[in-house]
Amino acid sequence: MQTHPPSSLLLTPGPVSLPMSTKRTMLEDHAFGGRSIVKDIAFARRYLVHLANAANLGTAIPLPGSGTYANEAAIQTFVPEGGKLLVHSNGVYGDTLVSICRATGTPHSVLRTSPVSPPSAEQFRQALCSDPGITHVMMVHCETSSGLLNPIDQVGRLCRELHKVFIVDAVATFGALPLDMRRLAYDVLVLSSNKCLEGPPGLAWVVANRGVLGACKGNARSLCLDLWDQNQHVARTSCFRFTPPTHTVSAVAQALRAHDGEGGSAARLERYRRNWRCLVERMRSFGFRTLLPDTIAAPIAAVFREPDDPAYDFDAFYLAMLERGLDIYPGPLAVQRTFRIGCIGTVTEHDMRRAADAVRETLTALGVRAFGAARARPAPVASIVPNRCLVPSHDRAL
Amino acid sequence: MQTHPPSSLLLTPGPVSLPMSTKRTMLEDHAFGGRSIVKDIAFARRYLVHLANAANLGTAIPLPGSGTYANEAAIQTFVPEGGKLLVHSNGVYGDTLVSICRATGTPHSVLRTSPVSPPSAEQFRQALCSDPGITHVMMVHCETSSGLLNPIDQVGRLCRELHKVFIVDAVATFGALPLDMRRLAYDVLVLSSNKCLEGPPGLAWVVANRGVLGACKGNARSLCLDLWDQNQHVARTSCFRFTPPTHTVSAVAQALRAHDGEGGSAARLERYRRNWRCLVERMRSFGFRTLLPDTIAAPIAAVFREPDDPAYDFDAFYLAMLERGLDIYPGPLAVQRTFRIGCIGTVTEHDMRRAADAVRETLTALGVRAFGAARARPAPVASIVPNRCLVPSHDRAL
Repeated sequence: MQTHPPSSLLLTPGPVSLPMSTKRTMLEDHAFGGRSIVKDIAFARRYLVHLANAANLGTAIPLPGSGTYANEAAIQTFVPEGGKLLVHSNGVYGDTLVSICRATGTPHSVLRTSPVSPPSAEQFRQALCSDPGITHVMMVHCETSSGLLNPIDQVGRLCRELHKVFIVDAVATFGALPLDMRRLAYDVLVLSSNKCLEGPPGLAWVVANRGVLGACKGNARSLCLDLWDQNQHVARTSCFRFTPPTHTVSAVAQALRAHDGEGGSAARLERYRRNWRCLVERMRSFGFRTLLPDTIAAPIAAVFREPDDPAYDFDAFYLAMLERGLDIYPGPLAVQRTFRIGCIGTVTEHDMRRAADAVRETLTALGVRAFGAARARPAPVASIVPNRCLVPSHDRAL
Repeated sequence: MQTHPPSSLLLTPGPVSLPMSTKRTMLEDHAFGGRSIVKDIAFARRYLVHLANAANLGTAIPLPGSGTYANEAAIQTFVPEGGKLLVHSNGVYGDTLVSICRATGTPHSVLRTSPVSPPSAEQFRQALCSDPGITHVMMVHCETSSGLLNPIDQVGRLCRELHKVFIVDAVATFGALPLDMRRLAYDVLVLSSNKCLEGPPGLAWVVANRGVLGACKGNARSLCLDLWDQNQHVARTSCFRFTPPTHTVSAVAQALRAHDGEGGSAARLERYRRNWRCLVERMRSFGFRTLLPDTIAAPIAAVFREPDDPAYDFDAFYLAMLERGLDIYPGPLAVQRTFRIGCIGTVTEHDMRRAADAVRETLTALGVRAFGAARARPAPVASIVPNRCLVPSHDRAL
């Protein structure tokens, strides 16, 4: 079997490559309610509330699991019996929110908009005015399937005007993009320790308005995913209700210290922006085209159209990049074929240049001559399909 | 603030101290669907099915989160609408199962028995015969709050006779005690990568009879905790549905390789038994008394009665032990005060002797002269209270 160098640089929208100083904390074992873990949890909660500018207003609730767990927990906890959630979707991550509503039996309606342009506040206003039963609104901040940044500021203002609880999935953006609870008027923010916070995956968080959370006792039809219950316990004890992923918790606390050391979200956003700009300009100079115009693209991952060349094959391209120690990611849009290169994690412009050059060399070696994509119209929304698994099926058999 | 040496030896029933070779795997980053993670997941599934002697009969389903997540997922997935679960409880972990039923609205009844002696098959037969609506039975294998081993073999036979689906919480025992799906007649087994498998916490598993699982599509009122859905995806792709805790997954695969290298569950049980025997005999030689007679105690953690001496104070004792680099655990039984010393993880008889000697020296230094407990009657069941958090409250404030 083909092998690849250990610790490829992850150029995906997450999991991301972590600094060694963060990973080294996982070499220590800690007890459930031990002093070190308790201090780490209390520090992490304070720091995340600070990043959200939510002091005296919000609380940060840790939840073992991926960002999807925290999204489900938010829906379970905040939408009460008799409530109804308007879910916006313009990509894979929005569709996951819809799947959560279906699985949990949460009354909901879906506002589905183009995957390649941001929705307007007017579309939300129409959806909300046409169904007065809607009590809550949820949307994804950065839809990393396309790289599109959704206008949470406008929707937040609208929700405040119309008295709807506003829940934002900021899993892909928290720690880099500004997510000020006071300015953006959200009530609940779902985030991950991974992605822009550059911690290991396995611990998600929800930053919630305390007043809104306070009314949510007993809403969740789950013990583990009940954020009200987790919050009351963690706020009282700085211990989790159930065994925490101790190594992950330590590493997340270290990741947050590194975030602070770098200069917080503003400095991190600046680095990611430089990464993104460097990558996109170099790739364009080789003939590649991005899926989105720059004005609506988030600097989290750049999404490129696949070359319109019969010699192009994503799987061969992916494996050849891996041979060079670079782990890229396919795009999930079926019709308009794309691939993604992440700009987050412990990566710099140097890595971006290396990635762009490797893309050119790899594709050239594979016989691809034209890197440009055919000029395509925006993909129909129905073309969204889930992430591909990257490993050939014969390697996967149990 | 008082500090303690890094990486205290964890003498708790979990999280446990891990071998450095297992933790070192967490220094590498891996992509979501990358080759290494996919191979690790496929290997781990095969190995766990092998340990359960469930080849051609069962499937191993990974679930990010603690054992409690997997217990909730099992209840959500396996008890269908119209079903009813008989939950046995004789301690904290049994009570957690009851809390899950309440939170999820799962119809259930509770068979509550003494926390210091095993229930009889007759008690189960009476409970099942008095309520023909019961379709499923769930019990904890080792109730680590007391150290009691529950008779899952007898209850399994009864469930087979009466055609009930039998779910076992083996979080504390899988990887050491024999848990043969064919011999013990369970349908669903909940386990943790931590504890006796000596991996990091953060990834739980369910080993399920494929036929029983096959009938469970759509039962769960949760997306994340739907084991049917997770299984169909993992079996097909060896990828998780949502971002896996990649560092934890690698470390768990390494922990399973180490488990195999040690000689599997039989060798591990033998080591734990030697640890337990060594600890208990030495502690008894100092005058300590165990909560349970040896015949019904699991070799996972030894539970000792607190000294009947006015100078004894658990918090001072705990902190002084921590100063010596030994992290022990309070008992959760309120009336009959106990403390626990775990015998699992990467620990040996040498560590057990060191622990027992440290207990004697520490308590002597604290002015405790008599280590024996008053001869107490079995505690009333109502005395069960949750685990204590070990850190003084002034350290915990957010």
